[in-house]
Amino acid sequence: MLLFTRLSRRPGNSVVYYPNRILKGLDPWEGGSRSRNPFAWIREAFSSSEQDVINMSGVDTAVYFVFLSTALAILFLSGLILLPVLLPVAATDDNLKTQKTFSEIDKLFMGNVKDGSPRLWAFLFAAYWVSLVTYFLLWKAYVHVSVLRANALMAPGLKPEQFAVLVRDIPPSTEGQTRKQQVDSYFKSIYPETFYRSMVVTDNKEVNKIYEKLEGYKKKLAHAEAVYDESKKTGKSKGLRPTTKIGTLGLVGRKVESIEHYNEKIKELIPKLEAEQKATLREKQQACAFAFFTNRVAAASAAQSLHAQMVDTWTVMEAPEPRQIIWSNLKIKYFQRISPASILDIAAVKTVLEAYLPQIALLVFLGLLPKLLLALSKAEGIPSVGHAVRATSGKYFYFTVLNVFIGVTLGATLFRTFKSIQKEPNSIVKLLASSLPGNASFFLTFVALKFFVGYGLELSRLVPLIIFHLKKKYLCKTEAELKQAWLPGDLGYATRIPGDMLVITIALCYSVIAPLIIPFGVVYFGLGWLVLRNQALKVYVPSFESYGRMWPHINSRVIAALVLFQVTMFGYLGLKKFSSRALFLIPLPILSLLFASVCKKKFYRSFSDTALEVASRELKEIPDMESVFRSFIPPSLSSENADDDNSEDAFSRVSRIGSLA
Amino acid sequence: MLLFTRLSRRPGNSVVYYPNRILKGLDPWEGGSRSRNPFAWIREAFSSSEQDVINMSGVDTAVYFVFLSTALAILFLSGLILLPVLLPVAATDDNLKTQKTFSEIDKLFMGNVKDGSPRLWAFLFAAYWVSLVTYFLLWKAYVHVSVLRANALMAPGLKPEQFAVLVRDIPPSTEGQTRKQQVDSYFKSIYPETFYRSMVVTDNKEVNKIYEKLEGYKKKLAHAEAVYDESKKTGKSKGLRPTTKIGTLGLVGRKVESIEHYNEKIKELIPKLEAEQKATLREKQQACAFAFFTNRVAAASAAQSLHAQMVDTWTVMEAPEPRQIIWSNLKIKYFQRISPASILDIAAVKTVLEAYLPQIALLVFLGLLPKLLLALSKAEGIPSVGHAVRATSGKYFYFTVLNVFIGVTLGATLFRTFKSIQKEPNSIVKLLASSLPGNASFFLTFVALKFFVGYGLELSRLVPLIIFHLKKKYLCKTEAELKQAWLPGDLGYATRIPGDMLVITIALCYSVIAPLIIPFGVVYFGLGWLVLRNQALKVYVPSFESYGRMWPHINSRVIAALVLFQVTMFGYLGLKKFSSRALFLIPLPILSLLFASVCKKKFYRSFSDTALEVASRELKEIPDMESVFRSFIPPSLSSENADDDNSEDAFSRVSRIGSLA
Repeated sequence: MLLFTRLSRRPGNSVVYYPNRILKGLDPWEGGSRSRNPFAWIREAFSSSEQDVINMSGVDTAVYFVFLSTALAILFLSGLILLPVLLPVAATDDNLKTQKTFSEIDKLFMGNVKDGSPRLWAFLFAAYWVSLVTYFLLWKAYVHVSVLRANALMAPGLKPEQFAVLVRDIPPSTEGQTRKQQVDSYFKSIYPETFYRSMVVTDNKEVNKIYEKLEGYKKKLAHAEAVYDESKKTGKSKGLRPTTKIGTLGLVGRKVESIEHYNEKIKELIPKLEAEQKATLREKQQACAFAFFTNRVAAASAAQSLHAQMVDTWTVMEAPEPRQIIWSNLKIKYFQRISPASILDIAAVKTVLEAYLPQIALLVFLGLLPKLLLALSKAEGIPSVGHAVRATSGKYFYFTVLNVFIGVTLGATLFRTFKSIQKEPNSIVKLLASSLPGNASFFLTFVALKFFVGYGLELSRLVPLIIFHLKKKYLCKTEAELKQAWLPGDLGYATRIPGDMLVITIALCYSVIAPLIIPFGVVYFGLGWLVLRNQALKVYVPSFESYGRMWPHINSRVIAALVLFQVTMFGYLGLKKFSSRALFLIPLPILSLLFASVCKKKFYRSFSDTALEVASRELKEIPDMESVFRSFIPPSLSSENADDDNSEDAFSRVSRIGSLA
Repeated sequence: MLLFTRLSRRPGNSVVYYPNRILKGLDPWEGGSRSRNPFAWIREAFSSSEQDVINMSGVDTAVYFVFLSTALAILFLSGLILLPVLLPVAATDDNLKTQKTFSEIDKLFMGNVKDGSPRLWAFLFAAYWVSLVTYFLLWKAYVHVSVLRANALMAPGLKPEQFAVLVRDIPPSTEGQTRKQQVDSYFKSIYPETFYRSMVVTDNKEVNKIYEKLEGYKKKLAHAEAVYDESKKTGKSKGLRPTTKIGTLGLVGRKVESIEHYNEKIKELIPKLEAEQKATLREKQQACAFAFFTNRVAAASAAQSLHAQMVDTWTVMEAPEPRQIIWSNLKIKYFQRISPASILDIAAVKTVLEAYLPQIALLVFLGLLPKLLLALSKAEGIPSVGHAVRATSGKYFYFTVLNVFIGVTLGATLFRTFKSIQKEPNSIVKLLASSLPGNASFFLTFVALKFFVGYGLELSRLVPLIIFHLKKKYLCKTEAELKQAWLPGDLGYATRIPGDMLVITIALCYSVIAPLIIPFGVVYFGLGWLVLRNQALKVYVPSFESYGRMWPHINSRVIAALVLFQVTMFGYLGLKKFSSRALFLIPLPILSLLFASVCKKKFYRSFSDTALEVASRELKEIPDMESVFRSFIPPSLSSENADDDNSEDAFSRVSRIGSLA
């Protein structure tokens, strides 16, 4: 923290510590002065409102803070009752005296209560208290997030994706009709008044390749020019024109003058790009498209309606934000989207299970896991980055809970007894319950380490700072390169939320057995809230906006953690020779599942679809449909002379070719 | 059949044998002559096209025939291979010789093959053949029904329900706003162009009571007048004015002259009805309404879209046909609709299970069961009769399969071994498999009896004929009463389809074990097709039209029967000491479930929602929105002077009171 206070004051570091403010065109230091109170950032974090977070970092970030504060409140309210009640109840018993080895801290845990003791009633009621607190706070949070989402969606500002729908699984067009004409006539006949125009998705592989090459040469040219300028300033008056080798990796081959070489290459590529753009637009039209509507209600309603009698044709869904479209996934067909996905999931689970075995492989695997899971999720044919991140986050959560939590708890015992589990599935609950208390102190340390090291690194941003300074010194020559070097990522929900989920799972599961975990959890989420508030306001730049679609996933996973807690409590009370009374715990998991289903019924659809009353709010100004349309054109296909319309192009205007019938 | 030929030729009976034709204004006998070939009805049934059925009896009936012909085709194609192959294979073995008691017919069944014999391979492949035939034909039928449904929905004729949506769960209105204004302003703001007007649903209990009383008196008056007219003709010139007693049931109390008495009562009730109508329209508005749109696409799209951010408010769904609305169910709230339904289902299942025990109670219960199940289904808050019939049909199917098929098969053994089953659920498969072959001849007789007696009674319509003639002679005096006496019901899908389902379940389950069942099944469905074709064209009058929504249910239940067949085959092959090779059957149930899920993904949504491309077809003429609106007004609330609009009425026009915000 001290490190952060010192480092963040140096002006050269401001791009590392305040990039979000800089990108928004704001002064890095709010007061304008650097010599302020070293703890001012804490005051700023506390005084920032939810609206500030939404303005600076979007609804998704605000929803993430709802999660942090809900987790904090669950643990705080649980601890308020559990700590003063359960600690004395456990400490004044003496079960562990009969055993040889125990540490002082173990005396505070449920393990110190004698088997079958009536004191166990207190622990049973504690399980009810934790569950009820969780239900209450999750419900409140769901309502709150639902309102946040509605407000963001009905905001009067222009969001191009609210005017568009994504159309997939377009059936083969009839003879003599281009894909574009087919799409236009189809939507024109269904929406004669509100349909604006369509954009057929094209196969951009080739054009992207050329475009990236061109952009690469442009960057290299800028770099070479900067080097040349520098050498002019420092060395001889004429300067030293940089050279490059044209062979593999610039290491072998003929030496040429860089600036001229790159200029040549660019000149060569521009007409090639233009030709490829034309060919792509005309000949590489895919069986998917974006359709644009002149108002939000029409688009929202179209995205929710069945269009064709055959469900696997003309599938219409909400358009993702232009920036998060995964273009190559759009063309994947209906049944391919549902079926191979599950096969991949099975493969993923298998990989995960196999990864237990060789420990070295596990370490490598752990590092690559988030990327691997993201790739798996993308392979499911998901059309937007935000959706893929949510899918990844889910897989990662199950992996961490399975691997770290259950894996550590059960350890090697699980594998020795694996055969007996297969015969009697109930025994896994017993096994889990019996292994839990022994690992309580391990998890106390785990959570403590996670917030000390994790949030320390997070706040001080040491790694990005060092990388930035190294790059600045040795590599970056142009402004663009420099910006690239300090440009921060987003909050990284795909791995961040599963990490927090693991902590809340641990805290919930141990809350009654070893209540000392609760203060650690409170500190974790409290500190997390504070540090990330600062980072959200000043550092991270969101790469997409899903208007809180993460919440249903968070909600159901907290409930999953709660059920795990309730089931292990049931098993542990059984082990404590309290079986008959442990039956009183059976309503809890049922209640949790009921709660999950009511939440789903009441809220879920408003997160998967846009409610029409929300979409029907008036806009600030009449939308410029042309700019809405243009915002969906990928950079590799945008050109200045897009207006010379050709009716066969993927982007052409609606032609008057009569209706579908 | 002979009885039918004779009876149906008498002109006095034509209303019993040709009511559907008469109601449609057609001549009962097609050729105009009664003295035609006694088997002409068979020719007519065969020569009638699917379109004829749709014209005379609607899409639902046509879909029912698709079911009959699919079941017929499944059994026919199965029999084509199974009969010539399996019968010789079984007959030439001699397993049963070792046993003491067996009939000749048992030699033709699978039981006659020796345990572990390689001949069992033939039976294993037969199971595959039956399954593949079923998949293929079900798929073809689903595509066919889907097209039937689409064609019916896109027909250019005016269907008022296609212009309306049902709105439920309307939240409490704000101060100073009537329910009607609230609904109008809500829809006006979301659909400024396509919303026509709304009709708030009112609590019609009181007004219906008065209306029915009034209609009752009107009928009695007509009856009394007819009696008087008759007496004038037959007896004295002045005639005998009929009298009635005004006490309980017309048995006690003062004697009064009927005609005057009824006239008085009617005069009394008319102003009372009008006053109650006004009060109902103004003060008894419920939290549900119908909203009308000026085009079909808008209504179809609205029915599929989420309207409010809170999913349990402003629930919008397709409007049912006016004639099949269950008015009293419309006001039931969202969570009440989902939750008590399942509780009732559990109660129903419990009743079913308990009904096994006392056999006399069972008989009474069986008679009342369809009514009970219909009442249970209605209690789920279902808004339309067609939907309630589908729900009833499902419950009845599970009841009959559970009770008749499995019940008979396992008989008392099940109850004796019930405890062991609870411990080892697998054993139910074994038990079922071992009990199956013993009952083969019972089910042969069962199916035969069902078509001989069932279809004989069906075609000859003996019971309705006798009732009609009795009523005509002793009770009916007016034309309306006479019509009431011969008016036929509909096909009664709620019990008819489960009955057919039971037969196809039996036929499928025994198809390999005792292939002789197949010809009986073929005759059952063939004869059923023929007889019901006649009845559909000439007798029954459909009471609702759901455009084939029954099909997804039929499809999934045939698959359920198929899975039952596959599982029992697996168990039976195991009993035959063929276990290791019986494993080859494991892919079959998996394949069936996969098939069911692909069917659901590909077709289901087009049966629950109306595809927009279907709704967007042009209409024959511009719809008269006023008549569309009027068709939804229940008879007890319709009055001639409905045009004196009052802005606070449930039926009033849209007032210009500004938008929602």
